[in-house]
Amino acid sequence: MNVIDIINKKKYGHELTNDEISFVIKGYTKGLIPDYQISALLMAIYFKGMTDLEATYLTLAMRDSGDVLNLDEIKGIKVDKHSTGGVGDKVSLILAPLVATLGAKLAKMSGRGLGHTGGTLDKLESIKDFKIEITFDEFKDQVNKIGCSIIGQSGDIAPADKLLYALRDVTGTVDSIPLIAASIMSKKLASGSDAIVLDVKFGNGAFMKTKEEAIKLAKLMVEIGKNAGKHMTAILTSMEEPLGHKIGNSLEVYEAIETLEGNGSDDLNEVVSVITGHLLLDAKIVKDFKEGYNLALTTLKNKSALPKFYEFIKAQHGDLNFIKDKNNLLKNSKMLKVASKKTGYIESMDALEIGLAAMKLGAGRATKDDEIDLFVGIDLHKKIGDKVLEGETLYTLYHNNKGLEEAEEITTSAIQIGQRKKSLKLIEETIN
Amino acid sequence: MNVIDIINKKKYGHELTNDEISFVIKGYTKGLIPDYQISALLMAIYFKGMTDLEATYLTLAMRDSGDVLNLDEIKGIKVDKHSTGGVGDKVSLILAPLVATLGAKLAKMSGRGLGHTGGTLDKLESIKDFKIEITFDEFKDQVNKIGCSIIGQSGDIAPADKLLYALRDVTGTVDSIPLIAASIMSKKLASGSDAIVLDVKFGNGAFMKTKEEAIKLAKLMVEIGKNAGKHMTAILTSMEEPLGHKIGNSLEVYEAIETLEGNGSDDLNEVVSVITGHLLLDAKIVKDFKEGYNLALTTLKNKSALPKFYEFIKAQHGDLNFIKDKNNLLKNSKMLKVASKKTGYIESMDALEIGLAAMKLGAGRATKDDEIDLFVGIDLHKKIGDKVLEGETLYTLYHNNKGLEEAEEITTSAIQIGQRKKSLKLIEETIN
Repeated sequence: MNVIDIINKKKYGHELTNDEISFVIKGYTKGLIPDYQISALLMAIYFKGMTDLEATYLTLAMRDSGDVLNLDEIKGIKVDKHSTGGVGDKVSLILAPLVATLGAKLAKMSGRGLGHTGGTLDKLESIKDFKIEITFDEFKDQVNKIGCSIIGQSGDIAPADKLLYALRDVTGTVDSIPLIAASIMSKKLASGSDAIVLDVKFGNGAFMKTKEEAIKLAKLMVEIGKNAGKHMTAILTSMEEPLGHKIGNSLEVYEAIETLEGNGSDDLNEVVSVITGHLLLDAKIVKDFKEGYNLALTTLKNKSALPKFYEFIKAQHGDLNFIKDKNNLLKNSKMLKVASKKTGYIESMDALEIGLAAMKLGAGRATKDDEIDLFVGIDLHKKIGDKVLEGETLYTLYHNNKGLEEAEEITTSAIQIGQRKKSLKLIEETIN
Repeated sequence: MNVIDIINKKKYGHELTNDEISFVIKGYTKGLIPDYQISALLMAIYFKGMTDLEATYLTLAMRDSGDVLNLDEIKGIKVDKHSTGGVGDKVSLILAPLVATLGAKLAKMSGRGLGHTGGTLDKLESIKDFKIEITFDEFKDQVNKIGCSIIGQSGDIAPADKLLYALRDVTGTVDSIPLIAASIMSKKLASGSDAIVLDVKFGNGAFMKTKEEAIKLAKLMVEIGKNAGKHMTAILTSMEEPLGHKIGNSLEVYEAIETLEGNGSDDLNEVVSVITGHLLLDAKIVKDFKEGYNLALTTLKNKSALPKFYEFIKAQHGDLNFIKDKNNLLKNSKMLKVASKKTGYIESMDALEIGLAAMKLGAGRATKDDEIDLFVGIDLHKKIGDKVLEGETLYTLYHNNKGLEEAEEITTSAIQIGQRKKSLKLIEETIN
């Protein structure tokens, strides 16, 4: 087999075989195929796409480039979720204790990620003494015992994805749907769960800017997962405004606790309950989605998942005294309240710009090596459709003197106030 | 300026600026931009193409990556020709003494090339003691004195092309018209002539398989050359059968001499005379193409360019005694005459397959480091439209025991004999 022939085959729009894709991924991971041939192939894939079958072969080859975790020691059906990332997305923090409370097993590996805020791991690390690095045995034990755990990547998961991602990043080949799908799904499939719900975000605050692109990505990932024998669901959620009210690592933990206390915002309650509904169905805990959804929403409202949250934090060595007074999460930064300059309804909130403002304050990383400040961020007092009066607080910046002016300028211009009371459709579609 | 932005710009189909293209070529030549980014860009160019202006910028940046030869010391208008390569193409060997005889100055740098036979340099080296490496001053002096010279590449011509070609070769990005055009034209423009005729071959024995592709390539090269201030003409010639009768290095020198002796085949006389006609017009030696063409054909027929051929060979240290008996060129190999198995007309001759047969005998190189046998090859006794009788010699293989059976098998199956007397249109179009 010859890489040049494989590049040409893809270039001319023919379907690659499992053997060919596997040859490329193995060869690249072992360092036998040079970067320059892979980048040419990636660009050809950008232009010619991949069939569902090719994308599946690619995903499986990438999965098999490293460890595939065996969660058999965890009893019952293991569920997992993945979000393609958005501004203010703290869903995993709420979902883990919620599904565990309702009897499913959530064994989740999470990432730090680049972006406006840190990833789920960074958010959890804003909780004093919380450990994201526990052994794989401890991880499985914890899920068996309390029903959930969220840890950093254990073992050598999908090393081919790390290599490919780094190469795509510097060769203009990031925005290819089959490559994005294979990157996400190779890691998910290596993580060993039985059922996966994907939260595919679209809109200006998301990686997928249009609904059409997001649908393509969602369908492909669902197909790949099914081909690999998993229960799969994808929901398409709008990222036209940030999710919930708070953006920033410790602020998002705060809002997760608020939500588990029954005081979540409508959009956050909705996304969490929809994902939970699907996972409970996959885990055979409920008979249909609607039952799962209602159960989830009720459980949030009646606060009965809150004890599980504390149990989860404690199991991973987090300081319960610190977390039980959630205001501790807001104490390592200063507040600046910013008032509305006019009266009207919030017509739009540019999620991307608001994410950028959070980043200016230090909440996110632009490169892997950037330090982040876990305690800064933005609290949006209003959301799209809300009425605001001139002089009323529009948002609060939590800051440590860094990037304050810029963040205020960006946030203020990102929020459009007018006379129309608009409403947003949050979940556009469900694919399974 | 950032390479990733430039890759994305091309990928999304926008036109690159001169500064951007120049930045890429300079950076790559200096080793500042890695292969993997260039190969991604090349693949994006394969898919999105280049405007004439972009291709011109690319060509000029590649030309300027090395030495640009100054031929000012050669008096008068300097002419050059380039062929995109075909089977049995010995045109340069005839053209050089012909245009010199008629008063133009041909200062030609040639290559060895990969393919079914060697390049013009290899062919010339089948002449005992012929030197293709003379100094640049000797080269200019010779052209001033006798009107022509053909040498190997002098100086550091278009190093960016060498790098890019090597990368294209291993990344599936060879067959891109703007990249092919820039590769050819960067070297031609660096070689310093004032007028260039391009012989763009098409058909199964040529690099361009279809007439449409060949026209695109020809038009683009003419445009690039004009943008660089050169007189440009391109002719499109069919490569449905080999050019002339002989294929193989010393065999092609033999046929060149035959042609200069007034005994050339019609197709070879035609191509040489057409190219010469355009060059004489560009050199202001004739008033119109037709006059130049007729002058060329007459000169071939009346043998008056033959003395110039000997003068040319002698000037570059070739052994005149050896060459004056042209049969010496056939003495370093054995002959195998192959008879026709049926009576009829030659309906087709697969030039590509016949080239391959010559290669099996050792006449060409597959890789740069292959040794070639200058004295083996194929003499086609018949061409398309000719009548052949069963038992009559169809072709002769000149061999040194290598690849003989394979070559015979391939050549015989490449020649189709039937009942229709077909004729080929040799020159399909002239672009200037």
